[in-house]
Amino acid sequence: MGNFQLCPKFEKGMQMLGKRWTGLIINQLLSGPQRFSEIKADLPISGKLLTERLKEMEEEELVTRKVYAEVPVRVEYELTEKGRALQPVMKEISKWAEEWVEV
Amino acid sequence: MGNFQLCPKFEKGMQMLGKRWTGLIINQLLSGPQRFSEIKADLPISGKLLTERLKEMEEEELVTRKVYAEVPVRVEYELTEKGRALQPVMKEISKWAEEWVEV
Repeated sequence: MGNFQLCPKFEKGMQMLGKRWTGLIINQLLSGPQRFSEIKADLPISGKLLTERLKEMEEEELVTRKVYAEVPVRVEYELTEKGRALQPVMKEISKWAEEWVEV
Repeated sequence: MGNFQLCPKFEKGMQMLGKRWTGLIINQLLSGPQRFSEIKADLPISGKLLTERLKEMEEEELVTRKVYAEVPVRVEYELTEKGRALQPVMKEISKWAEEWVEV
């Protein structure tokens, strides 16, 4: 099995991406940095859960949180290079899901 | 948000693929049909969990289970067309994970 060495990375990556909402948040941030309220407005997700998920994504270095010292303070979330590198993955999953997944 | 209509399909697909071992099982079956024992030999997974996961994947129409009336009986698992259609997804996730995921 040629990709055995890759297994732990692949498996860890799959679990990272497979968490509820993570894929949709990445998809949304691929269009550019967004404020918390903007992300929330487009997803049927509670503020509490979105906060939790964004924190995990920060720990996994998929997003960065930028705080602008304005009044009122502005906080934006942006994909890191690692996060942006997921664009081809997201594209292929979207194509597959659109063709094959029934809801 | 242009892909809003796609969201439920995308989200369901992500969750399907994000389950522990599912991606690795798909990756393995992309090389062709395999017996239960062959899949198990290549993955550090218990027989109980592999059985459970394959059953779910059958329900999700990602794999089919074929029973050959030989002595002893031979059982093989094979990707469906829906499962095989995941090849580009698996390829992109592998590339991304190899480059970006640390274990």
